[in-house]
Amino acid sequence: MDEPGMSLLDQSVIKKVPIPSKASSLSALSLAKDSLVGGITNPSEVFCSVPGRLSLLSSTSKYKVTVGEVQRRLSPPECLNASLLGGVLRRAKSKNGGRCLRERLEKIGLNLPAGRRKAANVTLLTSLVEGEAVHLARDFGYVCETEFPAKAAAEYLCRQHADPGELHGRKSMLLAAKQICKEFADLMAQDRSPLGNTRPALILEPGVQSCLTHFSLITHGFGGPAICAALTAFQNYLLESLKGLDKMFLSSAGSGHGDTKVSEKDAKHRK
Amino acid sequence: MDEPGMSLLDQSVIKKVPIPSKASSLSALSLAKDSLVGGITNPSEVFCSVPGRLSLLSSTSKYKVTVGEVQRRLSPPECLNASLLGGVLRRAKSKNGGRCLRERLEKIGLNLPAGRRKAANVTLLTSLVEGEAVHLARDFGYVCETEFPAKAAAEYLCRQHADPGELHGRKSMLLAAKQICKEFADLMAQDRSPLGNTRPALILEPGVQSCLTHFSLITHGFGGPAICAALTAFQNYLLESLKGLDKMFLSSAGSGHGDTKVSEKDAKHRK
Repeated sequence: MDEPGMSLLDQSVIKKVPIPSKASSLSALSLAKDSLVGGITNPSEVFCSVPGRLSLLSSTSKYKVTVGEVQRRLSPPECLNASLLGGVLRRAKSKNGGRCLRERLEKIGLNLPAGRRKAANVTLLTSLVEGEAVHLARDFGYVCETEFPAKAAAEYLCRQHADPGELHGRKSMLLAAKQICKEFADLMAQDRSPLGNTRPALILEPGVQSCLTHFSLITHGFGGPAICAALTAFQNYLLESLKGLDKMFLSSAGSGHGDTKVSEKDAKHRK
Repeated sequence: MDEPGMSLLDQSVIKKVPIPSKASSLSALSLAKDSLVGGITNPSEVFCSVPGRLSLLSSTSKYKVTVGEVQRRLSPPECLNASLLGGVLRRAKSKNGGRCLRERLEKIGLNLPAGRRKAANVTLLTSLVEGEAVHLARDFGYVCETEFPAKAAAEYLCRQHADPGELHGRKSMLLAAKQICKEFADLMAQDRSPLGNTRPALILEPGVQSCLTHFSLITHGFGGPAICAALTAFQNYLLESLKGLDKMFLSSAGSGHGDTKVSEKDAKHRK
C-alpha cells in the first residue's frame, strides 16, 4: 500500500495500524490524541451516495462516495472542514452543528474536530465529488474531440504564418510540437492517482506521481483528464495543420522535400 | 450586428426586423409561421437569475441569464427543448407541461413549440448557464496556473528524453512547441463569441470566428477558456523544461552553443 497518494494522507489524517480487513468495527481505537484517525476502514467502502450537481432532469445520476474519497478530501492539500464536507456531500444543514456527520466520520475512523480550518481555496471544483468531476472531464473530452474546430483553426493559422519560403521550417516546428505534446500527454495518461474506489498500480516514479497526485487531489480527478481533453483539441489542430501543409507541398510548384530540420523522427510522425 | 454568432441564430430562431430599441413591447409580432420568433427583445436584458449548481454553502452565487443566452440555448447547435431549458433555468417541474416557461419565452419573442427535439447531446456541461460555465473555467485556470506541477513534469520528462548528445535538438523542439502553442493560445484568446450580456467586437475573420463560436455555444463559454487553462499548464511545463535544459548547458562540460536548428526566432523565445 506504498503509494504516494497514501503518503500525503499519512501525515495528518490516518495512522496505519495492522488490523484485520473488517476494520469498521475497530474504529473506536484512538492511537494518538492529535491523530484524526483510529483504525482504517476499507477505503473502497462506500460512505454515501450524492446526487449529481450537473444532472438534468431525467438523467439524474447518483455518485458513490467512498471512504477513501472522504479521507482524501479531509487530508492535505484540501483539508475540508466538516461544514464544507457536509456541503460537498449534500447534507442538509442541521442544528446540531454537523454532529451527525462527525459521528459518521468517527465510525470510519476519521476524527474531525469542529472548526478545523480549511487549507485550500474553495473553487467551483470543490463542490464536485470525484465521480462527478471525472464525468465532467470525460464530457469535456468528448466535446473537445468532436466539436472543436481543429481544421478551421489550422487553416486560419497556416494562412497567417505560412510564408511560402518557410513551409519546411513550419512543418518541422509542427512536428516538434506534436512530439513534445505527445510526451506530455502520455505522462498525464500515466497518472495513477487514487480516485473513487480505485487503487491503481503505479507506473511513474514516485516523485513525479506524488506531484500529479497533488493536482488530482486539488481537482478531485478533474484536472488531469481535463488537461488531456484540451491537449486532444490542440493535437487535432496540429494534425490538421500538418495535413494542410502536405497539401500545399503537393500542390505547389516548388521542388524537393528539403531537409527536415528538427529530428530524424519526422517521418514517423506522418499519419 | 453582423456577427457570426448571430448568423447561427438567424437560421432558425430569430428573424431580424428593423425595430426600435425598446423591442420587448413588439414581441407579439409574428413574421413567419415557422419562425420561432417575432420581434427581438434586447439580448442583454436579464431573463432570470439561477442559483449556482456548484456553489458551496455560504458562497452561494446567483448567475444572471440574459435573453441573449436563452436565445443561444434554443438555437443551433444546442436547440434545447422547453423541458431541458426548464432544467437549466432551475425551474420546478409543473403540471402545466412547461406552459409557464413557454409564456415567458413568448414575451421575449421566442416561440418554442412543445416537444421540439433537442439537437445536441446532453452532457454535464449542458446544465450550466454561461455565467457559471465561465466561472468554472476561470477556477480551472487558477488551479492550472497555481497547482499544476510543471517543474516536476519538466524534470521528469527531460530525464526521460534528454540524451546528452541531443540537448540542442531537444531545445529546438521545445522552442518550436512553445511558439506553435503560443500561436494557438493567442487564437483562442481572440475568440469573441457572444456570451452573457456581452456583444464583443470581432477580431478574427468571420470564418474562423464562427467555428469558434460553435464550440463556445456547445460549451456555454466553458470550452475556450478551459482549453486556454490547460495550455497554460502545458506552456509552464515548456518553460520549466527550457530552464532545466539551460541549467544543463551551463553545468555541462560541453563546448559551444551550437546551431539552432529550427528557426532564427529561437533567440527571441528565451525568457
